[in-house]
Amino acid sequence: MTNSFFETHQARFKRAQAACAQRDCWSPFPELPGKYPDAETAQAKGLAAFNARLGQDQPHHFDLDQPGTVGTLGEEISPYTQRPLRILYPQADPNQLFEAASKAMTDWAQAPIDERIGLLLEVVDTLYREHLFDIVHAVMHTAGQSFNMAYAGSGVNALDRAIEALVYAHQAQHAVAPQARWERQFGPSTIVLDKTYRLVPRGVAVCFSCASFPTWNAWPSIMASLATGNAVIVKPHPATVLPMALTVRVFRQVLQAAGFDPNLVTLALDSQAAPIGKQLVKHPATAMIDFTGSVRFGQWVEQNAHPALSFTETAGCNTVVLASVTDLDAVLRSLATTLCLFSAQMCTSPQNIYVPAAGVQTPPGLVSFNEVAQRLADAVAALTRDPKKAAMILATVQSPQTLALLAELQSQGAQRGTVLLAPQAYPHPDWPAARTSTPLMLQVSKAERDLYGEERFGPVSFVIACDDADDALAQATRDVREFGGLTAFVYATDEAYITQAEDAYARAGAQLTINLTGAMPLNFAAAYSDYHVTGLNPAGNAALTHLAFVANRFCITQSRRPARADATVNSK
Amino acid sequence: MTNSFFETHQARFKRAQAACAQRDCWSPFPELPGKYPDAETAQAKGLAAFNARLGQDQPHHFDLDQPGTVGTLGEEISPYTQRPLRILYPQADPNQLFEAASKAMTDWAQAPIDERIGLLLEVVDTLYREHLFDIVHAVMHTAGQSFNMAYAGSGVNALDRAIEALVYAHQAQHAVAPQARWERQFGPSTIVLDKTYRLVPRGVAVCFSCASFPTWNAWPSIMASLATGNAVIVKPHPATVLPMALTVRVFRQVLQAAGFDPNLVTLALDSQAAPIGKQLVKHPATAMIDFTGSVRFGQWVEQNAHPALSFTETAGCNTVVLASVTDLDAVLRSLATTLCLFSAQMCTSPQNIYVPAAGVQTPPGLVSFNEVAQRLADAVAALTRDPKKAAMILATVQSPQTLALLAELQSQGAQRGTVLLAPQAYPHPDWPAARTSTPLMLQVSKAERDLYGEERFGPVSFVIACDDADDALAQATRDVREFGGLTAFVYATDEAYITQAEDAYARAGAQLTINLTGAMPLNFAAAYSDYHVTGLNPAGNAALTHLAFVANRFCITQSRRPARADATVNSK
Repeated sequence: MTNSFFETHQARFKRAQAACAQRDCWSPFPELPGKYPDAETAQAKGLAAFNARLGQDQPHHFDLDQPGTVGTLGEEISPYTQRPLRILYPQADPNQLFEAASKAMTDWAQAPIDERIGLLLEVVDTLYREHLFDIVHAVMHTAGQSFNMAYAGSGVNALDRAIEALVYAHQAQHAVAPQARWERQFGPSTIVLDKTYRLVPRGVAVCFSCASFPTWNAWPSIMASLATGNAVIVKPHPATVLPMALTVRVFRQVLQAAGFDPNLVTLALDSQAAPIGKQLVKHPATAMIDFTGSVRFGQWVEQNAHPALSFTETAGCNTVVLASVTDLDAVLRSLATTLCLFSAQMCTSPQNIYVPAAGVQTPPGLVSFNEVAQRLADAVAALTRDPKKAAMILATVQSPQTLALLAELQSQGAQRGTVLLAPQAYPHPDWPAARTSTPLMLQVSKAERDLYGEERFGPVSFVIACDDADDALAQATRDVREFGGLTAFVYATDEAYITQAEDAYARAGAQLTINLTGAMPLNFAAAYSDYHVTGLNPAGNAALTHLAFVANRFCITQSRRPARADATVNSK
Repeated sequence: MTNSFFETHQARFKRAQAACAQRDCWSPFPELPGKYPDAETAQAKGLAAFNARLGQDQPHHFDLDQPGTVGTLGEEISPYTQRPLRILYPQADPNQLFEAASKAMTDWAQAPIDERIGLLLEVVDTLYREHLFDIVHAVMHTAGQSFNMAYAGSGVNALDRAIEALVYAHQAQHAVAPQARWERQFGPSTIVLDKTYRLVPRGVAVCFSCASFPTWNAWPSIMASLATGNAVIVKPHPATVLPMALTVRVFRQVLQAAGFDPNLVTLALDSQAAPIGKQLVKHPATAMIDFTGSVRFGQWVEQNAHPALSFTETAGCNTVVLASVTDLDAVLRSLATTLCLFSAQMCTSPQNIYVPAAGVQTPPGLVSFNEVAQRLADAVAALTRDPKKAAMILATVQSPQTLALLAELQSQGAQRGTVLLAPQAYPHPDWPAARTSTPLMLQVSKAERDLYGEERFGPVSFVIACDDADDALAQATRDVREFGGLTAFVYATDEAYITQAEDAYARAGAQLTINLTGAMPLNFAAAYSDYHVTGLNPAGNAALTHLAFVANRFCITQSRRPARADATVNSK
C-alpha cells in the first residue's frame, strides 16, 4: 500500500534529513557507475532500453499515455552522432493538460504529507533502480554529457537533490499543526474553538528544464511541487526531451500504481520554431513556474510570472580571482580541469579569470600576468591533447550555436586581445561524428568588458588583467552583482584578503570556493551540503534547496468552530 | 549588553514558540486595558504624552532624528474631532534613506541571529511598557478606532503578531547550519572541506502601513525583515502617520542604545496629493515590499515589485452563508456585532451575506428570507441605537470618502434593491464632532453583483437572496476567488454541508468560522493561532505568519575551503 512507502524509505529519509541539517557528505547512491549494484548487467540493460527506442527506418513513437494529445513532436539530435534520434513524443494541448492536472490534484492534495513524500521517495528509488542507465544514455545523446557525468551529475546527484527537496517539503509542512483546541475568556464567557489547519497546494506548476543539464534542477523542482500537493507540467527544452519524457513516465507509473491520478505529472512539448513557453507562463491556471535556462527568458519569466510564483536558475558570469598561491601548478591544473569539464556547459563553470597585471604571488616570487595566462592555457591544452582524455572531460558541445559563438568570440578576441588558446574539434574516440571543441581562451584588458560582461555559454574563458588583487576582487564581484553568478573561486594566501573576499562574494551572492586544488572538480556542488543559487543577483532566485524553495508552494487555510462538549483533540 | 536581551526575554519567547507550534491561546499581555499593570497611571501618562504632542497655536514638530530631512509634512485629521492634529514630521529624501539603510545593514546582518531577535523582543517590550497608551491614542486619533480596540487590536494583539514573526524568523534561520565539515573520496584522494554558511539579508524593505489598522500588519512585517538582517523604511498612509512615527522612534532608540545604527528603521512620508509609493516600490535599492492597503495599489505592487519581493494584504469580499441554524437570534446578534465592529473598517469584516431565497432552516421551521434580512437589520439597529454603546462598537469613520461611498451605495441600493438599514451619524458621547455613521444594509438580488462584487470599504453589507444553500455557498466562494477574501462565516446544521463548505472555502482561500455565536467577535483573529491571508486569492499573499513569510527575507551564501589539519568544527 502507498502508506508504507514512507516506512520503506524511512531510514534513507532520516539520514537525508540529518545530512540537510548537518550538511555533511552523504548519498544513498554510489558515485561511480562501476559501483552500481550488478553494474554490468544494469548498464547493458539501460543501453539496450535506450537503443531500442531510437528510430531506425521509421521514427519511434515514445509511449506516453497522457491526455490532450493533438500530434507528435520530436527534433532531438544527438551531439555524439549529430543525427536525429527520430523519437516522436506526444504533443499536447496545454489547456487539456492544465485541466487534467487541476482535476488530479484533488485527491493528491488530500493525501497525508507523509504518504505523498513516501510515494515520491519511491519514484526516486524507481528512477535509480530501474531507469538510471536508460536516463544516462538519454542525457548523453541530448545534453551531450559524458557517460560518467550523466551518471553522477544528471543521475545520482540529481536524485540526491530530489530527496533534499523532499526533506524541506517535509519540514515546512510539518511545521504547521494539523489542529488545535483554543480556549479564551471573553468577559464572563469562555469560548472554546476547535481549529483545523489545511495545507492547500498553490495549483499547477510548470517546470521548464534546460538543454544541457535537464534533471539536476527539474527533479528537485518537480519533487518540491508534488510533495506540497501540486501538479506539475514539465516543459523540456526541445533539444533535450528524452530524459524528461522518461522522468514523466516514471512519475506517472508510480502515481498510478499507488492509486493516484497520473495526470499529476505531464509533458508539454514544443519545438524550437514554435515555442510555447510564454503561453504556459501566462496561462491562467499556472500557479508556479520553475525555470532553468537562458538569462533572457528567465528574466522575462520573473517579470511576467505574476500571479504565479517563479523559481529560476539562469546563468551568470562565474568568476575566478587569482591573487597569491602556494602551488601555482596545482592551482592551474584545477582551474584547467574545471574550465574543461563538460566543455564548461554548466551553470557553475567559471568564465572570467581576474589576475593582477603585476602577476601572481607564489612562494618563489611573482609570476608575471603573461606567464600565468600562458601556463593556464597550456594546462588546458595538456588536458585536451589526448582525444581519449578529452572525451572524458570535454564530452560534446550540446548546440551548434555554441560553435558559432566560439568562432565569433575568437575573431573578436584576436582583434581586441590575445587568443591564448584557439578552439578546435577533437576526434572523439568512440563517436567519430561527435560535435566537439577544445576550449577557447582569451586574454583581454578591462576595456573589453562588453566581451566578457555576460555569460558566454560554452567552453570559453577570459583571463583579465587587473590593477591589483583588490581590483581583481572588485571587478569579479561587480560582474556577479551586475550579470549574475553562481560560483566563484578565489586563490589567496593572505587571510585578511580571504575574509574580504568572503564578505564581497557573500554580498554579491556567489557560492565561494577558496584555495581548492586536487582531485575534486572545483565547481562540484554536493547535494545536502552545498547551496546553489543565492537569489542575490540576476542568476536566478531558486536555491536548491532550502525552506524558501518549498514553503511558498502551499498555503494554509483554517476552519474553526465551537468545540462540542464530547470532542477531544488528538495531538499530533 | 545586547546579547542578554535574548536571555531576558527567553521564557516569553519559548512560550511563543510553543504557541506557534500548538496554536493554542496565549499572550504575554493582558487583553483588557484595565488589566495593564498600574493601568490608571499608565493610561494617564499615555494620554498626556499624546496630548503634549498635539499642535496648539503652533504646529508640533515630531522629534525624529533621521537622515535626509528635506522638509516637513503632516496632514492628519482626527476622526474624533475632525480637526488637524497639527503634527509635522520630517519629510525625507528617499535616496538618502535608502543609502543610510544600506549602510546600517552591515553590522546588523553580522550580528548573531539571537542577538537580533533578542533586541527585537526588547523593542516589543519597550513598546508595551513605555508607549502602549500613547500609541493607543495615536491610533484612535488617526485610524479612528475605539480606545478598547486600539488597545487590543492595534496594541497587544499587534505586539503578539510581532513576536510571532520573530518565532518564525528564528526557526527559518536556525534551520541553516552555520558550518560543516565535509569529507569525500575522489578517486584515491580524500578531500576535506570546511564550509561556512552565511545568512545574507535581501536588502532594504519598504513597509507600507494602512490608514485604518496600521500596526497589526506593519509590526510583524518590520520584525520579519529586521530579524533576518534587513533594514526597513516605513511608509505610512498619510492619514495615519503618528502610530508609525512612534514605532519608528522606539525601534531607533532601542537599536541605538544597543550600539546598532538606528537608520535600520526610518520613516518615509508623503502626502495624499503627492504620493511616493510607486517611487519607493521601483527604487533600485528596494529588495522587499510589505504592503497593506487598497486592492488597486496592492495589485500594482505585486505586478511591479520585481526584482523586489512583495508581501501584500489588500482586502476582499468577506462572505457569510446562512443556511440553517439552531438559534437564529444568537446568530443574528453575532453577525450584527461583527458588522458593526469598528464600522466594518477591518480587512476581516464580512460584507456579503448569502441567504437562500426560501429562508433559513431553524428548529421551529423555516424563517423567510425577508424576515431574516429584517431581523438582522433590527439586530444591527439595536446595537447602535444607544450612542454610548454605538461609540464602543462603531467608533468613528476613518475617512470622509467612506461617508460619500455610503451615500452613493444607499442611493443605488434604493433603486436596485431594498435599504434594510439607512446609515446615519450618531452622536458620540465623548467626541461631539466625531465622524460617525451607523451601518448601511442593503437587500439585493444576485443580479446586482456589480454592486457587491468588490470590497466596499466601511460599514456596508449586502443581504443577497440565493437559489438555495448550495447556491449560497457557490456564490460566496466565487466572490472570494474572484475578488479576494480573508474571512468567511458559515452557519449550517448539516455536517455534510459543513464539510462541503470547508472544502470550498479552503480552495477559495478564506479562513472559515463555522456556527460561532456568543461573546467572541466573529472576525477576531488570534495571534499564534489563527492564520491570516492565505495567498490563494486576490486579497494578498502575506499570511501572518508562517515560514513563507520569513524564509525568503534572507539568502544563504557559502564559503568552502580545504580544512586545515589543525582545524576543528564546532557543532552548533
